[in-house]
Amino acid sequence: MTRYPQMKPLNSLNFSGGPGALPESVLQQAQESIIEVPEVGLSVLGISHRSDWFAAVVTELENNFRILLGLSRDYHVLFLQGGATQQFSMVPMTLLRGKTSPAEYLHTGYWSGKALAEARREGQVRVVWSGESSGFRRLPDDAELSFSPDAPYLHYISNETVEGLQFHRVLGRDDVPRVCDMSSDFLSGPCKAERYSLIYAHAQKNIGPAGVTIVLLRDELLQDVPVGLPGFLDYRNHIQAHSNFNTPPVFSIYVILLITRWLINDIGGLTSMARINRIKADLLYGLLDGSDGFYRGRAQRSDRSMMNVVFGLKTPEMEKQFLAETQAAGFSGLSGHRAIGGMRASIYNGLTGYAVEKLVAFMEDFQRHHAKK
Amino acid sequence: MTRYPQMKPLNSLNFSGGPGALPESVLQQAQESIIEVPEVGLSVLGISHRSDWFAAVVTELENNFRILLGLSRDYHVLFLQGGATQQFSMVPMTLLRGKTSPAEYLHTGYWSGKALAEARREGQVRVVWSGESSGFRRLPDDAELSFSPDAPYLHYISNETVEGLQFHRVLGRDDVPRVCDMSSDFLSGPCKAERYSLIYAHAQKNIGPAGVTIVLLRDELLQDVPVGLPGFLDYRNHIQAHSNFNTPPVFSIYVILLITRWLINDIGGLTSMARINRIKADLLYGLLDGSDGFYRGRAQRSDRSMMNVVFGLKTPEMEKQFLAETQAAGFSGLSGHRAIGGMRASIYNGLTGYAVEKLVAFMEDFQRHHAKK
Repeated sequence: MTRYPQMKPLNSLNFSGGPGALPESVLQQAQESIIEVPEVGLSVLGISHRSDWFAAVVTELENNFRILLGLSRDYHVLFLQGGATQQFSMVPMTLLRGKTSPAEYLHTGYWSGKALAEARREGQVRVVWSGESSGFRRLPDDAELSFSPDAPYLHYISNETVEGLQFHRVLGRDDVPRVCDMSSDFLSGPCKAERYSLIYAHAQKNIGPAGVTIVLLRDELLQDVPVGLPGFLDYRNHIQAHSNFNTPPVFSIYVILLITRWLINDIGGLTSMARINRIKADLLYGLLDGSDGFYRGRAQRSDRSMMNVVFGLKTPEMEKQFLAETQAAGFSGLSGHRAIGGMRASIYNGLTGYAVEKLVAFMEDFQRHHAKK
Repeated sequence: MTRYPQMKPLNSLNFSGGPGALPESVLQQAQESIIEVPEVGLSVLGISHRSDWFAAVVTELENNFRILLGLSRDYHVLFLQGGATQQFSMVPMTLLRGKTSPAEYLHTGYWSGKALAEARREGQVRVVWSGESSGFRRLPDDAELSFSPDAPYLHYISNETVEGLQFHRVLGRDDVPRVCDMSSDFLSGPCKAERYSLIYAHAQKNIGPAGVTIVLLRDELLQDVPVGLPGFLDYRNHIQAHSNFNTPPVFSIYVILLITRWLINDIGGLTSMARINRIKADLLYGLLDGSDGFYRGRAQRSDRSMMNVVFGLKTPEMEKQFLAETQAAGFSGLSGHRAIGGMRASIYNGLTGYAVEKLVAFMEDFQRHHAKK
C-alpha cells in the first residue's frame, strides 16, 4: 500500500466527508503551480482558459478518463460548475421536460432525496423504491425493484455519502438510459461506465478540489433536448466548446488532471485503486464487527460503502467523547453528517492505509479504555 | 506604487484578459495554504465547507466587502458558481419572468450581447441603446439614453472587457432597480455600490481565481421571485445558507479573502487602488496618444477602460510581429479577444506599475525600430 510518512500529520489523518484528503504528491504539484506551472512559467491562477496550455490540459484529462474507464468515443467528457446540485436540475431539464412518462428515481438517502425534489419541479417522477421507512439503513434487493420500459430514464446514486450505503451492482434495464450520481465513489474503482448513459460526479471526494463536476454522457442522449434552455444549462454548448463555454475553474481542473495522472502512473489504474480501498474499508468494518457491539455500523452489511464508514456508539455522551478524543489525537472530520449525527470515517482515494491503521489502533484503545467502565 | 521585484518575470508581465495576474503576496499565501492553512493545519483543498474555519472565512469576506464598498446591511453578499454567464440567466429568471413591462438592456459590446440573448429567453427586453452600428467603439452620452419608469430593471455592463470600454458614471433612474455586471472592473476603484440593486462580478479579473462569482443584492429585490425555480438558481437559498447551499469552491473563496485583505491592509482601500490603476492606464494611453498614430486606441477617449487597453497597429502583419516580439520579450496575454483581434493590455489590480513601465518601454522601442522602415 502506498504510504506518505512525510505528509503533514493533520492532512494525512483527514477523514472528512468532503472536501476530502488529496494525495501528498498531488498537493505538492498543485502547490508548485500556484507560483509557476513548470511548462508555462505562469501561475495556474493567472493562465488564460483560452491558452494552448489549458486546451492541452482538457484534452489530456478527457483522454485520461477514457483510459481509466475504458470509455468509447460515444461519450462526451465534460467539466462543469455547480456541483451535483446543478446536475440534479440539468438532468430533468434535459431529459424529462415535456415527456409523458415519469422518470424513475430511487430514494436511498439524503442526497437522492435532494435529486428527487429537483426532478419533481421539471416533470413527473415515479419513486421506484424508498428506504425512508427503514431510516435509510439498507438498499433494495433486486426482488424489490421493478423498472418500466417507458421511463425516459432511471436515476440513482451509487454511494450515499451521508448514510454510508453503496450499490455494488448496476441497476435498471438496458433499454432505459441509466443516469447515476457517482459523486462520492467515482474513480474509487471500476464502475462499468458504458452501462450508463450519463454519469456525474463533483470532484471534492476522490478527484480534486470543490468547484468542478465531471459529466460523462452518451451522445445519443441529446437527440431531443427541449428548446429555450439557458445557455449554460444546455449540455450541447459545453460539448461544442470542450468545457470552455464560459471561463471554467482552471485550477480545479488542473488538479483533477494531476489526480488522474496519479491514478494511472502511481496507483496503476482503477482495479488497483479498488484493491487499496477494499483493504482500508475491511480494516474499519472488521474493527466494527469485532467490537462486540461497542461500535455499531449503521448500514446493512451487504450495502456498506467502501468510501464512508458510518457508525455510532452506545450513547450520545460516549459519541461526544469519542469525537473530542479523536480530535485531540490529530484525527479530523470524523463527525457524522449534520442530518443524522453519529460518526463517519470517509476513506476516499487520497486517504492512505497508514491513516486507517492509525484510526483503527486509536479506536481499539478507546474501546479498551471505555468498555471497562 | 507597490512593486514586487521578486515576482517571477512571467507572472509579473502577464497582461492576460483573464484569468488575470494576482499580487505576489497573495500567491505566496495561496501557495502555503495548499499544504497547510496556518490556523487550521489542513490543506485548503481538504477542509470541510461546514467547518468553523470556512464559516469564519465567509463572515470575514462578507465584512471586507462591506468595508471596501461601504455597503449597508440592506445588501446580501453571495459567493456563487457559474460565472457571469450564470447571472445572465439568473437575473431575468428572478426579475423578468411573468412581468408585463420589458427589462431594459444596454448593448455596448461582446459581453452585454451575451447577457441580452439570455434575457430574451426569459421575457421581453427593450434595448435602450446599441453600439453595434459603430462597431462598439464608443458608449452612449446621456442625451442618447431614455429610461422607462415601468421597467422591472435596467441591466448594463460597467466595463466591456473585449472592446475596452468603461462607463465612468452611474446610468439609469433611481426608481428602477439597476443591475450591473462589473466582472472586469469590480474592486478596481469605488463604484457607488448602493446606487445599484444588484451587482455581479466573476472573480477572475481583479479578485481571485476562476470559479466563483460575487453577487451583491438588495434584500427588497427578492419580494416577488417566481415560484418553481431550480433550487440552485434561487438567490434566497444561497442567502439563507450563507453561500453554503451546496459545496462552494472553498479554495477560490479563500483566495478572494486574501485579495480583500491585501486591498484593505496593503493598498489602503479602493480610492488608493483607483489611483494606482489610473497611473497605469495613463502610462499606456499616453503612449498610444503620443505615438503619431503608430499605435491606435480602439475606444473613443471619453469611454476608455482603465482595465483593458485595446489597440491596433497599421497592418495585420505588424500586429503579428508585435505579438511575437512581446512574447519573446517575456510579456504574455497581449493578443486581443478572438472576437475582434488586435491587441489588448489588461491591467487589472494585480498587475504592477512596474509591469506597465516595462511594456511602455518595450512599445517605445518597437515603434522606434519599426516606424523607420
